[in-house]
Amino acid sequence: MENILVKRPTLFLDEVKCRQNIARMREKALRSGVAFRPHFKTHQSSEIGRWFRERGVDRITVSSVTMAEYFAADGWKDITIAFPVNLPEIDAIDRLASQVRLNLLVESPEVIRSLDRGLRHSAGVFIKIDTGYGRTGVQFDQFTRIGSLLEAVSHSRNLEAMGFLTHSGHTYQAGSADEIRRIHRESVERLTQIKRRFQDKYPSLIISTGDTPSCSVVEDFGEVDEIRPGNFVFYDGMQTALGSCTDDRIAVAMACPVVAVHPERQELVIYGGAVHFSKERLHDSCSGVVYGWGVARKSGGWGDRIDGMYLAGLSQEHGIVSLPPGLVDQYSVGDTVLIIPVHSCLTASCMKEYTTLSGRTLSTLR
Amino acid sequence: MENILVKRPTLFLDEVKCRQNIARMREKALRSGVAFRPHFKTHQSSEIGRWFRERGVDRITVSSVTMAEYFAADGWKDITIAFPVNLPEIDAIDRLASQVRLNLLVESPEVIRSLDRGLRHSAGVFIKIDTGYGRTGVQFDQFTRIGSLLEAVSHSRNLEAMGFLTHSGHTYQAGSADEIRRIHRESVERLTQIKRRFQDKYPSLIISTGDTPSCSVVEDFGEVDEIRPGNFVFYDGMQTALGSCTDDRIAVAMACPVVAVHPERQELVIYGGAVHFSKERLHDSCSGVVYGWGVARKSGGWGDRIDGMYLAGLSQEHGIVSLPPGLVDQYSVGDTVLIIPVHSCLTASCMKEYTTLSGRTLSTLR
Repeated sequence: MENILVKRPTLFLDEVKCRQNIARMREKALRSGVAFRPHFKTHQSSEIGRWFRERGVDRITVSSVTMAEYFAADGWKDITIAFPVNLPEIDAIDRLASQVRLNLLVESPEVIRSLDRGLRHSAGVFIKIDTGYGRTGVQFDQFTRIGSLLEAVSHSRNLEAMGFLTHSGHTYQAGSADEIRRIHRESVERLTQIKRRFQDKYPSLIISTGDTPSCSVVEDFGEVDEIRPGNFVFYDGMQTALGSCTDDRIAVAMACPVVAVHPERQELVIYGGAVHFSKERLHDSCSGVVYGWGVARKSGGWGDRIDGMYLAGLSQEHGIVSLPPGLVDQYSVGDTVLIIPVHSCLTASCMKEYTTLSGRTLSTLR
Repeated sequence: MENILVKRPTLFLDEVKCRQNIARMREKALRSGVAFRPHFKTHQSSEIGRWFRERGVDRITVSSVTMAEYFAADGWKDITIAFPVNLPEIDAIDRLASQVRLNLLVESPEVIRSLDRGLRHSAGVFIKIDTGYGRTGVQFDQFTRIGSLLEAVSHSRNLEAMGFLTHSGHTYQAGSADEIRRIHRESVERLTQIKRRFQDKYPSLIISTGDTPSCSVVEDFGEVDEIRPGNFVFYDGMQTALGSCTDDRIAVAMACPVVAVHPERQELVIYGGAVHFSKERLHDSCSGVVYGWGVARKSGGWGDRIDGMYLAGLSQEHGIVSLPPGLVDQYSVGDTVLIIPVHSCLTASCMKEYTTLSGRTLSTLR
């Protein structure tokens, strides 16, 4: 890695940091007495999945039927598809249900009816609850609706109610770790109210939560039974900005060749654009819109951010790197720069493979 | 297509519109007496490439060595890589130069020296000129620098100077077709000044321009010798917003299954997220940030936009579609919605295949 030179944009993975992220979250779950069902949408790699398995993880979360099939083929036997049921894939869902312990998310009686009609094999279902994010799920205070969904599940042939599941994605809008904790607490209180309300009739239902910001900063998960974080496996610049992690836990960085140097603008042009990084952006009060941050090379990987060096623009294949005063002379065409991405999930999905620091390639679902 | 139902997010291609876009731009180039070297980065498909060839196109533009290799393998013999030379790929560039008539872009003496040392086969080079976009290239008024680059090329063993090339990407910031024309005129004037300055010494150098907005709205290309538009093959919602096209020329639309209906918010949740559309966005004065627009189904394809229906949010696999009042009752889980993308180049790069309206699959470079 010291003399790393890449031919094309390359997504490097620091296996040590990644395994540490896995171990740390696994230990936190054990310590807190919550089940750990990591979300695999971030890495989408069977090999990285095995690193979790080596740590004793036996259940996972995915966000599509395709992903469930991919990981089932690699031996995973207990899979939650944390995405509203996509009815056109009912046959594939039924096939999966015949192979693994499968959990689905429902939020409407129509979908429960369709599943009941369409599935020949049994599946667990979580009632998806919207605790404030506003994307999907039943509004947390609609107890009548939640009750009738549970009722519909209990009358179905092949569905078994598992519990109440939320994704508190609004933690991504938080301004501080304290605000993340506040949102998490509020979500859990809302889910706990629901659980208590239906406890007499359905005593075995669990509470499943799972955004990376909450799981990273919260120590006491309270009434939560299961956590499903995903992004923590790599972390990224957005998570650092949120206070979920420190930069030294970020396990992926893009390496991109420099293709032009513009001293008059203190900019580099790199081979590495929107099709490599994704167009995920962050607004920084100093720099404006940012698509990534330059980091220094370091023996055995990469080190700290280079102050004032950031990815300021992206077109399809080009990236524009803004440099702080005095640095531009250190770069020549053909050099490689290292950049931590804003959002590792999307960058990984664009790149579809990882190169470890020892040069090994890990493939992903394509 | 009338009863189109898709299982997963699917990028539909209207072959008729696409072939018309190709024919129209080809005819405009012929009429205007400019060479037509379409940019293939938008579609990245050998089959769509053949539709150009059927129209007599014999030279193309790409934006990476990988793309050049892909199209060379499909029989293209005259290829310009409209991206600053990526020196770590010098061996692949040399191999390409041995197979096809290859043109490269240079903007520094260092790169010319490296090419001269590294290439065993001859290649054409364009001096990349920045006529105002500010991304790459030599500033249009740096005549001394341009002269010394031409000088360096003329002293090289294997390089032949071809001309001056620009991408006026700032037309994408234009507020009207008139402003696009103004930017184009300014760019061409700047290139013409350069050409005249060096005409005595280098009489054969040409002017190559090529953004889709300019090529779409300009009728008289003036001193331009060659145009290299790419996006026009599909167009998209951004081009309509710019005034480059009307919606009826947009040749691609995403079809996505509805996975949840939220009447209280007048929203649909679709299976179709950032990994399918890309996170390219447009700011609309009415709707705010927009990631795509809903269009109506129509016999044999899709029709007009549905007023007030737009893609308002994207996470990894989810999309949130905002609906106008009164429409939400018409949708059920399992339905398919059709959405024209903001930026077809990036959506195509995410999807990596097209489905024609007759159900045929066209592959792309992966």
